[in-house]
Amino acid sequence: MSSFDSILSRLDDRLDGALDHLKALIAIPSISTDPDYAGACRQAAEWLRQDLEEIGFRASVRETPGHPMVVAHHDGPGPDAPHALFYGHYDVQPVDPLDEWDADPFESEIIERNGRNIVTGRGAADDKGQLMTFVEACRAMIAETGTLPCRVTILFEGEEESGSPSLLPFIEANKDELKADFALVCDTNMWDADTPAISGGLRGLVGEEVTIHAADRDLHSGYYGGAAANPLTVLSRILGDLHDETGRVTIPNFYDGVNETPDAIKASWQKLERSAEGFLKEIGLSEPFGEEGRSIMELTWARPTAEVNGIVGGYTGEGFKTVIPAKATAKVSFRLVHDQDPAAIRKNFRAFVEERLPKDCTAEFHEHGGSPAVQLPYESGLLTKAKQALTEEWGVEAPIIGMGGSIPIVGTFQTELGMDSLLVGFGLADDRIHSPNEKYELKSFHKGMRSWARILTALGQKAGESA
Amino acid sequence: MSSFDSILSRLDDRLDGALDHLKALIAIPSISTDPDYAGACRQAAEWLRQDLEEIGFRASVRETPGHPMVVAHHDGPGPDAPHALFYGHYDVQPVDPLDEWDADPFESEIIERNGRNIVTGRGAADDKGQLMTFVEACRAMIAETGTLPCRVTILFEGEEESGSPSLLPFIEANKDELKADFALVCDTNMWDADTPAISGGLRGLVGEEVTIHAADRDLHSGYYGGAAANPLTVLSRILGDLHDETGRVTIPNFYDGVNETPDAIKASWQKLERSAEGFLKEIGLSEPFGEEGRSIMELTWARPTAEVNGIVGGYTGEGFKTVIPAKATAKVSFRLVHDQDPAAIRKNFRAFVEERLPKDCTAEFHEHGGSPAVQLPYESGLLTKAKQALTEEWGVEAPIIGMGGSIPIVGTFQTELGMDSLLVGFGLADDRIHSPNEKYELKSFHKGMRSWARILTALGQKAGESA
Repeated sequence: MSSFDSILSRLDDRLDGALDHLKALIAIPSISTDPDYAGACRQAAEWLRQDLEEIGFRASVRETPGHPMVVAHHDGPGPDAPHALFYGHYDVQPVDPLDEWDADPFESEIIERNGRNIVTGRGAADDKGQLMTFVEACRAMIAETGTLPCRVTILFEGEEESGSPSLLPFIEANKDELKADFALVCDTNMWDADTPAISGGLRGLVGEEVTIHAADRDLHSGYYGGAAANPLTVLSRILGDLHDETGRVTIPNFYDGVNETPDAIKASWQKLERSAEGFLKEIGLSEPFGEEGRSIMELTWARPTAEVNGIVGGYTGEGFKTVIPAKATAKVSFRLVHDQDPAAIRKNFRAFVEERLPKDCTAEFHEHGGSPAVQLPYESGLLTKAKQALTEEWGVEAPIIGMGGSIPIVGTFQTELGMDSLLVGFGLADDRIHSPNEKYELKSFHKGMRSWARILTALGQKAGESA
Repeated sequence: MSSFDSILSRLDDRLDGALDHLKALIAIPSISTDPDYAGACRQAAEWLRQDLEEIGFRASVRETPGHPMVVAHHDGPGPDAPHALFYGHYDVQPVDPLDEWDADPFESEIIERNGRNIVTGRGAADDKGQLMTFVEACRAMIAETGTLPCRVTILFEGEEESGSPSLLPFIEANKDELKADFALVCDTNMWDADTPAISGGLRGLVGEEVTIHAADRDLHSGYYGGAAANPLTVLSRILGDLHDETGRVTIPNFYDGVNETPDAIKASWQKLERSAEGFLKEIGLSEPFGEEGRSIMELTWARPTAEVNGIVGGYTGEGFKTVIPAKATAKVSFRLVHDQDPAAIRKNFRAFVEERLPKDCTAEFHEHGGSPAVQLPYESGLLTKAKQALTEEWGVEAPIIGMGGSIPIVGTFQTELGMDSLLVGFGLADDRIHSPNEKYELKSFHKGMRSWARILTALGQKAGESA
């Protein structure tokens, strides 16, 4: 048995041990957006540092103004070997509404649901399960061969779900340490449960919170209704105005920097369309809600959006209260594509709101992160090798697809460290990330580990070598 | 000193004792809309029953499917005397946001604020302070004369702030007991701190809660944004569509039954306009928000409204969560005037929402009470006597004004018991009812008691008698 085959065998034989590691990590409730869980975030970072040291990395927990980073290094076969920077995030989304979970979100289990074996729990997919596929691949490779096929630096952050406020300053301050030949990111989806995929494009994100203020107190709608400005009404009008009748966003200059996707790419996506039909059906919907005349894949991969993510104002408890509130708040996010400028989008959105304010109303804005979209070249050595490795593991060709979600780090790697990123992940659309009952496929975890062993081996080879 | 003068003297001399009664009632947190306070509502009812018995009424706490009623009777000078039914409500609004109160909302104090002596606390004005002006007047009259000038029935309910679900069935089931010659209601405002007022018109109310449902779970706005229906966006569009650019409500047939106010009445209101300027200024606003081209008094007294009282959906906690929620909810209320039909308004609103639902979205409606508007004849014996009594007490003529808020009971008294209602109250627009730091003017409480002694005496007199 070659050392490569022995790595794969080891990953098969020790799957239970790998799952125990993942369950231990899920058990730490590292919700980054809620200050009550700051201690848990640190605990998750410490857990990862210790685990990486046990594997053979030089690992450290690094302070930031927010939640800490984990940085680890392995020299691989030597200084001439290709150098990979692997990125993941150990923080997770809040778990509310808790009563919609079938089981404790932090007590992960391996169960069968709908005929599939799954790993349950908050972060099972996003991103603890995904990042552990890479960690477990490294553990097996070092155990079997004494080293890794590449030099490897690992960067785990703890603020990805809350806008990554510390990430850019940290990378800027540690450029020399973090710079590598390319980045590997495992925070994306497969095409379907049997077909791996490589993500060639990622949407960017602008997060905004806007509060409309009117009277200096909550008012009785009987005494004042009809005469006093109602911030809920004003907010509704503004948010209801964000799209025109064809689903296009109406903010001026919103589409500046949005490119039409090449026909060849659209055609390749069209071949995938049949599976995409299920995309909406499996969440109880039947037809696209966005811009008219575009496929679901184009809408979610190559078109920008304006989405309301939360509204609160007035009386929202049980029963009824006839109040005109003093203020109303909305959280709004924009998914960006291609060359859209996050700063311009934010500025134009704020102007859009200001222009629609009646007299007596003011708007207060709060920024929640921003990152441009990333569009990788459809052909590159990195993609070619990874595509080959994935095809060998899964037995089907891996398409190069788009990604609806944002992974801000990928843009940062491009602009700050001059690195392309290889986006390979094993999530599925029905993993319910950010929702109750998040899960990760056991198959994704198992073959994900094997895939990384193959990819890292392929990337470590010089031209003409073979495993 | 006549017995009538001795009543007024007693009310002056024993003001502190009257305030102690009021403080004890405010101390009971009878929030009707919140099930956690059901016990406190019952406690308030029991407190009133006991107090009324001590005064000399035959009083009882009466069960309903919700919070109990208090019913009390006094035979006055005999079976031929005019018979008054006095109505008030012992329940209060919720106190959130609690951190905006300067002091405990249930620990009432008599303090000076902005040069005025006030009674603080939730319910100080709405309606505990107001109803106690009548109770204290009765206490003094019975103590001084051994009886009351009229036969008096008292009805206190505990669900006024949550739509009065039990009131109509209770009145229907107890018509013979509750029927009187006329009703007295003390839940309205003075024109200003020095000028009492009689309310000739009251707006009705329709309360609706609507929840828009889309996908069967919360969604990640990255994966699904641009393709999946967003209930917050749908809700915003619908609520933003409720008014046209001139501030008119756009629901079909909404203005059916709305009459133009007679020019003579508008002219009398116009004379009051100067004080009305302060109406908006004192809440930090400067110009009317509603229908164009109408005075503030007309907007709040004689025009209907559609107001959003609460919206909640998506992520509303600290930080940001890029979610497309499965649902979004709004509480919406309509103030009605003249002959608008509450059932038609509700039906037309629901149709308005349904018509605007995109495919894949459904709307779930929940009813929160409904009552028609009341418009009393501008001239009647009841009004004339009360106006005279108020003028004597306050030394200025009491105008007959409109009322923006709803007092559903008044319509019920008309339809079920065939009684007109005399609406006299001593609240002020800046009493902050339904808001933090609710208060009642000490002067309102004191002169309110004296006013009821005068009014009840005037109403008990046959033509030609004098006190």
